[in-house]
This record gives sequence, C-alpha cells and structure tokens, in this order.
Amino acid sequence: MICSEPIVNVMNFFTPLTSIFPPLLLTTENNAENAPIVLTGVLLSLVVIYLASKIGGELSRIIDLPPVLGELVGGVLVGASVLHLVVFPESGATAGDSVIMTVLQTINNLTPDAATAIFNSQSEAVSILAELGVIILLFEIGLESDLKELQKVGYQATIVACVGVAVPFAAGTAGLILLFHAPVIPAIFAGAALTATSIGITSKVLSELGHLKSKEGQIIVGAAVIDDILGIIVLAVVASLAKTGEVDIFNVIYLIVSATVFLIGSILLGKFFNHTFVAIANKLQTRGNLVIPAFIFAFFMAFLGNAIHLEAILGAFAAGLVLDETDKRKELDEQVKPIADILVPVFFVTVGAKVDLSVLNPVVPENQQGLIISLFLIVVAIIGKVVTGWSIFGQPGVNRLAVGVGMIPRGEVGLVFAGIGAASGTLDKPLQAAIVIMVILTTFLAPPLLRLAFKKSVDASESLEKADLIG
Amino acid sequence: MICSEPIVNVMNFFTPLTSIFPPLLLTTENNAENAPIVLTGVLLSLVVIYLASKIGGELSRIIDLPPVLGELVGGVLVGASVLHLVVFPESGATAGDSVIMTVLQTINNLTPDAATAIFNSQSEAVSILAELGVIILLFEIGLESDLKELQKVGYQATIVACVGVAVPFAAGTAGLILLFHAPVIPAIFAGAALTATSIGITSKVLSELGHLKSKEGQIIVGAAVIDDILGIIVLAVVASLAKTGEVDIFNVIYLIVSATVFLIGSILLGKFFNHTFVAIANKLQTRGNLVIPAFIFAFFMAFLGNAIHLEAILGAFAAGLVLDETDKRKELDEQVKPIADILVPVFFVTVGAKVDLSVLNPVVPENQQGLIISLFLIVVAIIGKVVTGWSIFGQPGVNRLAVGVGMIPRGEVGLVFAGIGAASGTLDKPLQAAIVIMVILTTFLAPPLLRLAFKKSVDASESLEKADLIG
Repeated sequence: MICSEPIVNVMNFFTPLTSIFPPLLLTTENNAENAPIVLTGVLLSLVVIYLASKIGGELSRIIDLPPVLGELVGGVLVGASVLHLVVFPESGATAGDSVIMTVLQTINNLTPDAATAIFNSQSEAVSILAELGVIILLFEIGLESDLKELQKVGYQATIVACVGVAVPFAAGTAGLILLFHAPVIPAIFAGAALTATSIGITSKVLSELGHLKSKEGQIIVGAAVIDDILGIIVLAVVASLAKTGEVDIFNVIYLIVSATVFLIGSILLGKFFNHTFVAIANKLQTRGNLVIPAFIFAFFMAFLGNAIHLEAILGAFAAGLVLDETDKRKELDEQVKPIADILVPVFFVTVGAKVDLSVLNPVVPENQQGLIISLFLIVVAIIGKVVTGWSIFGQPGVNRLAVGVGMIPRGEVGLVFAGIGAASGTLDKPLQAAIVIMVILTTFLAPPLLRLAFKKSVDASESLEKADLIG
Repeated sequence: MICSEPIVNVMNFFTPLTSIFPPLLLTTENNAENAPIVLTGVLLSLVVIYLASKIGGELSRIIDLPPVLGELVGGVLVGASVLHLVVFPESGATAGDSVIMTVLQTINNLTPDAATAIFNSQSEAVSILAELGVIILLFEIGLESDLKELQKVGYQATIVACVGVAVPFAAGTAGLILLFHAPVIPAIFAGAALTATSIGITSKVLSELGHLKSKEGQIIVGAAVIDDILGIIVLAVVASLAKTGEVDIFNVIYLIVSATVFLIGSILLGKFFNHTFVAIANKLQTRGNLVIPAFIFAFFMAFLGNAIHLEAILGAFAAGLVLDETDKRKELDEQVKPIADILVPVFFVTVGAKVDLSVLNPVVPENQQGLIISLFLIVVAIIGKVVTGWSIFGQPGVNRLAVGVGMIPRGEVGLVFAGIGAASGTLDKPLQAAIVIMVILTTFLAPPLLRLAFKKSVDASESLEKADLIG
C-alpha cells in the first residue's frame, strides 16, 4: 500500500556511500542498486545482534551470571545453531540460509546473484565491526588493568599466573594428543585456549562477594592481569604456529621475544608519551578532544602490532596499558565505555553465532568424540586453574582454593581463541564447539564455586583466629 | 630486522574474522591471506581520518570557525585532491592511487589482484563506517532538536524556515537552468543543496555571541530545526527524482506525504513508546542499558526508513526526536556523544576526501564554467537565506538581518547533499565541487556576518529605546 509498484526504484538514494563492491563481481549498475540494501542488511543485523546481546546479558544477570555469558548464548541462538538470523559465508552459509537475507529478498525482489553479493558484503561489514569491537575490548581491558595494583601482590600473582598458563596448556595439549590422538597443531591451539583468565568476570565476581581488596582478591586480580598478557602472547604464538603448520622453535622464540619487547617497550616508551598525550588532550578543545587522540594511538598501535607480524589486539591492549597511566584515565574510560558498549557485543554475539552447536548433538554417533573431548577440556580447565592456589608460598593463612577457583572463568580471551581457531580452519568443528562449551561452563561454574570457596575461607580464618587465641 | 623473511606468513592470525571476501573474486586461500591486511588498511585509514579531522577541527577553532569546516577541509587534504591517502574506487581511484595501499603493498608484497581486492574491501568498510556515522549524526541532531523550544517561537520560525527553503531552492534551480542551461535533475539537486541550515553551527555561533535566548536567537534555532526536517524531506524527494531520472508528480507527492507521515507518525507513536523505552532502560542493569536499546530503536527506524522507500537517516532523525522527549534524554545524549565523536568524523572526512577540487583549477579553461556556477550558488545561498528575515510579521523591533544571516551556514546537511549527489552520478564533478565550496564558504562567512548583524542590532535597539523614550 505504501510501497506502490512504480516507485520501487526510488528507494535507493543512499547509494553513493556504499557503491564500492568489487568491480569484478558486479556491474556498476548492480552496485548502485545493491548498496543501500547492504546498509539495510547491516542495520537489521545490528538490531538482531543488539537484541540478542541485551536479552541474553540481562537474563544472565537475573540468574546471577556474568552478562557476557548471556551475550554468547544469545549469539548461539540467533546464529547458525538455531535461528539462522546472523550467519556467515565463511562457515558455509549461503544467502538462502540467512533469514535476514530472505527478508531483504522479499522486500527488494533480488536476483540470486545480487543476493549472494549483498550477503557477502553485509557479512564482511558485520565482521569488520566485530573486529573493531574486539580491538576496543582489548583496549578497554588494557585501560582497566592497573600495573600499580599488580606490583603490590608481586611474585605471588606472577607465579599463580605462570602456573595457571603452564598446567592447563601442558595437560590439555598432552591429553588431546595422547588420549584422543589429535594432530599436534589443533591440540596446541585447544591447549592454549585453556590458558587465559577473564579479568572482567573475575574482578566483577570478587567485588560482588566483597573480596576484591582481600589478599586472595588482590592475588587473583594481579594474576588475571598477568594471565591476560601471557594469554595474548600465547595466542600470538599459537596462532602463528597454526598458520605455518609446524612447530618452528625460532618462530616461537621470535614471537615471545617480539610480543614481550612490544608490550614492555610500549609501556616504557609510554612513560614519555603519557605526558605528550595529556598535553595534547588538554590543548584540544573541539569535540572528541580526548577520545580521538586515544583512538588514533590505539588504532596506530593495533596497526603496528599487525605490521611487526604480531596482532592488532596486542597493540590495542598495549595502548590501553599506556593510557591507563595518565591522569586522563578515568575520563577516557568513561568515554570509551559507550563505544565499547555498542561494538563489543557485535564481537561476542558473532562468536556465538558462528558456532554450530549441532556438532555436539549426542544422538548423532560421530559427535560422541567431540562430547568426550569437551568433557576432558572442562576437567582440565578447572583442575589446571585450581592447582595454581597451591603454588603460592610464604603466605600462611591464604585461601588457596579461593585463589585457584578465582582463576577458572575463561571469558573474553577464551572466546577470542575459539573465534580465531574456528575460522582459520585450525580447529575442526567438534573441537571448536568443545572450546566454546568449555568457556561457557567454566564461566558458569566460577561464580557459585568462588562463593563456596570463600565461605570455607571464613570458616578457616575463624578457626585460625581460634588457633591464634589458643596459641 | 624485526620482520625476518621466514615468518612473513606468520602475521595473519587475525584471519578468521575478516575472511569473507566475495568467493567469486578470491580463492579461499587468498581470502585467508588478505583478510588481516584489510583490517590493517581500515585501521590505517581510520588513523589518517582521525588525524585529518582533529587537526582540521582544531585549526578551525583557533581561527574562530566551526570545527566541522576544518574536518571537511582536512578530508579534502588527505583525499583525492591533494595527498591521496584516503581515496575511493567509486571516484575512479585504483589501488595504485592510494598511498595507504602502497604502504600495505610494501609491507606485504601483494600481487596487483590482491591489492585491488584489499583496496575495494577496505574502502567498502570505511564507507560503511561513514554511513553509520551519518546515521548517528542525524540521530544526535534529532536528539538535540527540542520540539518544545520550537512551539514557543511558533509561526515565525515556520515561515522563516519555509521561505528559507523555497527561495534558495527556486532561485538556485531556475538560475542553473536558465542562466547555465543545466539539465533539470542536476539543477534541482543543486538547488535542493541550498536549502538546509545547520542547527549545530547556528546554535553554537549564537551561544558564543550570547544571543541564544534572544528573540532572534529563538527564531533562528526554531527555524533551523524545522529547516532540518524540511531539508531531509527535500533530500529524500530530490534524491528519488535523481534516481528515476524524471520529475514524476506522484513520486513527489508520495515522498512528501510519506516523509511527513513517517516523521510525524513516529513522533506521535513515540509519545507512547517513550514510556516503554524509559521503563525498559530502567529495568536493564547490564552495561549499555541505555545506549543499546536506543541504538536498537534508531537502527530499526533507520531500517524502516529504507524499507518504506525513504531513507535511513530520516529514520535515525525521527528516532532521535522521539527519544529527545524522554527524561533519559540528557544521559543518553552524554553517551551518544563519544560514539558520534568517533564515527561522525569518518563521514565528514570521507565527504571531503571524495571531492576532487582540481576541477575548480581556474588555469584549466574547461573548469571556468564550474567556477562561475560556484560563485552563482554562493550568491544565491546567501541572499536566499538573508531575505527570510523580512518574512517575519507582527514582531516590531526584531533584527531581520540577524535572523536571515543566522540561517546562512549550510554545514552537515549541505554536505550530505553533496556526498549523495556526488557518488550517485547525479552531480557532475564541477557542480559537486561547486556545492562543497558553497557549503564551505557559507559556513566560513556566517560567524563574522552574524557578529556584524548583531552589532547593528545593539545600535538599532539603542535607537529604538531612544524612540520609546521620546514617544
């Protein structure tokens, strides 16, 4: 009724800004016709992604779980596993598999070729928004990681972090190779996915329990910070190994050295740059006077991370660490929040959406291997972190169980591993889904377990006090 | 030294999230190799865009001009006219013309085919960010447009707005057809580009002069608000005419009616939706509890605007107007700001970057027509708005000149016209550049002229007071 026939061609006046499809694929004419439909597709995808992230996140919060978990599950629901609203060509989907594309096709009477081109362009745009999301997420994590806090808990946190990386990595990789006869590279990748601890989830749960400033809390947060840095180095190392297809010891050394030099070097250089940054931000008086210089720095570091053959998110994280040391930190953090709020969910939801959980359907016989692997990974993930509590020395009375349990949630970084491993083809579908399930379950289990562990702590410290009184 | 030969292939571990080039264009292998380079290209482009916008904006501010002007000029400098850092395939550039692509090619040893594919994908990503930028800009303008403010100045503002749209449009279009023998459609498009007034620039200048709350200030702001709405309707109408290639009176009526119904309908429906929105935002307790529902609404309205054959920015503007009426308005405005700060400059800089000012080089004989047209447009743009002051009735003592001069700056919406007209092929290069020059100059001239006009006002009111005393 509103859209009468003669004006079907009228709608596309937003053409110019999108009309840059690869010329080999489309004629200029198709281009001009399809471009606003790509924009429409991106807008609809974002609406679906935001709805999934918000509904999932809020439901998670209501049942007392970290919101990021709900965003991931929301992504699984709207993605390839269930509703097919947000699907991607790289996981084998075609335009016909996408419900959003079906809507666009109904509105616009597209030819199959045009639909495929629009589907690809729209998916690429959403993926680049997701990448910017993960870059901003790591920038924000860097911005929230306090190096000074770390120095207080010193060696304890470092040892907990190192043990918490080494044990799950070694046990996971060895177990996959020896028990499940997995190829070396995917086994290493899956083992590496077991290493990282989520700063965000851990510190949020600790503050909810009122234990953020306790000795245990400080060690956990300190270790989670170091763990995050180690996790990113491990990710860079492992992903590069996956790329070359073999374990080249020089590559490993080069990557560990360059990642460390890059991270520490940028922090040291940052001591000087800090003042320049604050001076610049103070001089600027137009809108975005703080956030734009910060993003110039973050994106340039991300570019540099890529250019020296490491990775974009490592650069963004280093940029965050550097700017965390300025007295603009709080103001900047405040401004980065809304930007992260609208871009980071795109990352989490698309990670969930790209996972096809049907490979873990236990009814299908060939899936049973994946399920067994999944169980194995979860056990290693939990035990590998819990043991870290017993690596603490010279701290009598510390709640070792609570520290270990506090390191369990994998959260964001674990999902980064799954996302990268999945689409690079390193991880086959069962292994990829097994990692996502491991991340979901460790994140699920950590809050109630941590509550239990700290309850024990109260009992223990009470009996300790009694022992002191007796002694 | 850092990038030793054997590990060149190592760098691309961020592959998975970008590996979605159109399959017809690239093999899967090329895909996986190119994807992180696309990300690198987008990051470098954003660094250049942000530098251009910030340096341009700040220099503008120092010489007391609106920052948006500097962003545009910064875009011209980094774009096709001068530095060739940010160029686009749709304006005829190839990968070899782009300095950023040359940098990427040097780092990565790309084949020409791969370079072309990366250039296209990277440009498409930047263009989609620019589109999201203009959508968020219009959402923000809607959010800052106060319907209540408007009701106070009532008819006066409406008449000023209507005259300020009709006169420049009629004079510009007629002049281009009669004096320059321009074809009808481009003439109408260029005439339409003369209609819009920049709320942002006008209200900023008024507040700097301390005249925001004066009678003149209220009429100007009110008229600028209505003008913005009229401008968007005119844009939708004209752009659709440009699409069909002919002046179809039913199209015009359909578009005016549907734009008006859409805008007014969404405002009326918004009265109810308002409460739902506030209730939802109050119930949500995870991060982004305000900004994500707002963006779901804005992007859905933008989608709807496109789907009923109008346009995305009209929907975003309507969404802003609706949410402006909630008591969450201030908080939301605060959170949308940083998001706009990082996305809107992408739009302004790319608009500038897509303009090739070389067509206005007076040394080349065939450019002289364009320069004469440019002069003509500027004269019409200024006179067409200044006369609006004399359309005010029943308001003795009002500074008619100041009201007229306050309507002169074209700003954002004028650039939207130029950007859309440029790449849709409706405007040829001289006409497109002439419009951009008109926007730049009207924005340049308005602040000093407005200062002069209000100085007159002081003298006039002093003599009026004297007259009162004598009377």
